[in-house]
Amino acid sequence: MNVEGRLPVNLKFIIEGEEEVGSHGLEQYLAEHADRLACDCVVISDGSQFAPGVPAITYGLRGIAYYELHVIGPNRDLHSGSFGGSVTNPANALAIILGGLIDKDGRVTIPGFYDDVVPLSDRERREMAALPFDEKEYFEQIGVDGAVGEIGYTALERRWARPTFDVCGLWGGYQGEGAKTVLPSMAAAKFSFRLVPNQDPAKIAAGLKTRLAELSPPGVKTELIDFHGAPGVLVPLDSPYVEAAARAIEHAFGRRPVFTREGGSIPIVTTFHQRLGADALLIGWGQDDDNTHSPNEKFSLADFHRGIRASAKLWEELGK
Amino acid sequence: MNVEGRLPVNLKFIIEGEEEVGSHGLEQYLAEHADRLACDCVVISDGSQFAPGVPAITYGLRGIAYYELHVIGPNRDLHSGSFGGSVTNPANALAIILGGLIDKDGRVTIPGFYDDVVPLSDRERREMAALPFDEKEYFEQIGVDGAVGEIGYTALERRWARPTFDVCGLWGGYQGEGAKTVLPSMAAAKFSFRLVPNQDPAKIAAGLKTRLAELSPPGVKTELIDFHGAPGVLVPLDSPYVEAAARAIEHAFGRRPVFTREGGSIPIVTTFHQRLGADALLIGWGQDDDNTHSPNEKFSLADFHRGIRASAKLWEELGK
Repeated sequence: MNVEGRLPVNLKFIIEGEEEVGSHGLEQYLAEHADRLACDCVVISDGSQFAPGVPAITYGLRGIAYYELHVIGPNRDLHSGSFGGSVTNPANALAIILGGLIDKDGRVTIPGFYDDVVPLSDRERREMAALPFDEKEYFEQIGVDGAVGEIGYTALERRWARPTFDVCGLWGGYQGEGAKTVLPSMAAAKFSFRLVPNQDPAKIAAGLKTRLAELSPPGVKTELIDFHGAPGVLVPLDSPYVEAAARAIEHAFGRRPVFTREGGSIPIVTTFHQRLGADALLIGWGQDDDNTHSPNEKFSLADFHRGIRASAKLWEELGK
Repeated sequence: MNVEGRLPVNLKFIIEGEEEVGSHGLEQYLAEHADRLACDCVVISDGSQFAPGVPAITYGLRGIAYYELHVIGPNRDLHSGSFGGSVTNPANALAIILGGLIDKDGRVTIPGFYDDVVPLSDRERREMAALPFDEKEYFEQIGVDGAVGEIGYTALERRWARPTFDVCGLWGGYQGEGAKTVLPSMAAAKFSFRLVPNQDPAKIAAGLKTRLAELSPPGVKTELIDFHGAPGVLVPLDSPYVEAAARAIEHAFGRRPVFTREGGSIPIVTTFHQRLGADALLIGWGQDDDNTHSPNEKFSLADFHRGIRASAKLWEELGK
């Protein structure tokens, strides 16, 4: 105000303190006050820079579809010697089903799974390839010597812009020490698909059921619990909001931001889109080494001041 | 003695009380006294009749090879959103490996797995088909509506005379309530192969390692623990000992016994064979509803007396 005299755009603030416990109050608030909150763009500024001195705009998030599957066989655990071979083993069946949901390159085998995937543009692939990201160093930090993955995509592209299938947990039968020759009566797993923009969780769920029916052997029943689904989010890189934010950040940080996507999901971004019809602009000033949620959490004063300057400049740029 | 004047064969008795705790003392005793115990045939009489009024001779047992497999990936559990797609998921890999060890009909895919399997003879298949065994009733009792299994074999043939692969337990990642979006750092399973006569546990172990190397995706390590192995046992149906036992049982029970095999393993039978070079004759007088190891365990006096008569007659028949 002191600098420009008046705000170049209308601003509405939403401040919430429940993000760490699921933002349930915010969801309800958005549902009840959508008209008062109507806007062109939602700016969320709790993200991070890509690296020290490398500010970023996050223009895409993956969605999610999370399930639990129970594979149910005989009415009791059986002796694997006396019965094995004559009864479908639910733990065998679970392995066949889960293993059959992906091929050897990690591609999901659900019919139509990739139909609606928005492909990476040439510009996106160039921007990602130019990021200071060393695949070898990444794998070393995780403690592995490589990874399976969709052929034709870098690790970063697979993290940010390609859908996945991941078993998050599985159990069944004897898990104790030593050997127990049991044919378990049931086995189960939790698993999720990370979805990318334009994949529809409802369509994925329908395809999953079709594929489960194909993969399930005779002699077992399957029960599928559908936990939650959220679609992916993608703000076009050439959107005027993204370009405005890029100019504002360049003004404050002295360098143009990089454009990143995020492999995880922020369901509230989808809720904003659904309730207000507005795209989100995901910016932020933190660093990955800020010890978020850990002892000695910190936030650099330099980033604090640059963030203030970038935010003020953003209103000006958005007003143009 | 009162009837025939003298025993028609040399008899050596071994009485042990450790069968329920692994027979370790017996194994050592056999190793130390093999010369004193030398014999032509080992008669073990703690088996069961096939059904009330249907005495049986068990002429085959399956062997076993039992393993535990650990699939080890990243050095910590990872967020399935931030990392999924770029890192091999050990739980996915476990499912692919276990699911890949069998085909859709339950046949084991280890190279050479079936090479040494002794096929069922026409006589065996006829005898099994003639047994009072109702497949539909069997599945009903187990609470399933059918089963996957090797094509071309009845459920009874698959239980008794075909090798199997059964996952006995598996675990990894999040098993609690609700959803946790984790990419687990490891997953594991216990599994066994039931082996049939002439399959060599050592050869199976070597084939398993080859197949594991084929099935394991990049980005995970596998660790295989080899628990125990025992080959299957088969006494030829036309052996003179089996024929002698059949005549003795017919004498005492008023009907010829049926010939059965057993899907489980009795490792001590293999030990007898290895230490003494003698085949085992597996007979017995109990019933499946005797509540063995349960409250109200019982043994019918009629079967007790018929068993005594059959045993006495057996010495006479074996002496011929």
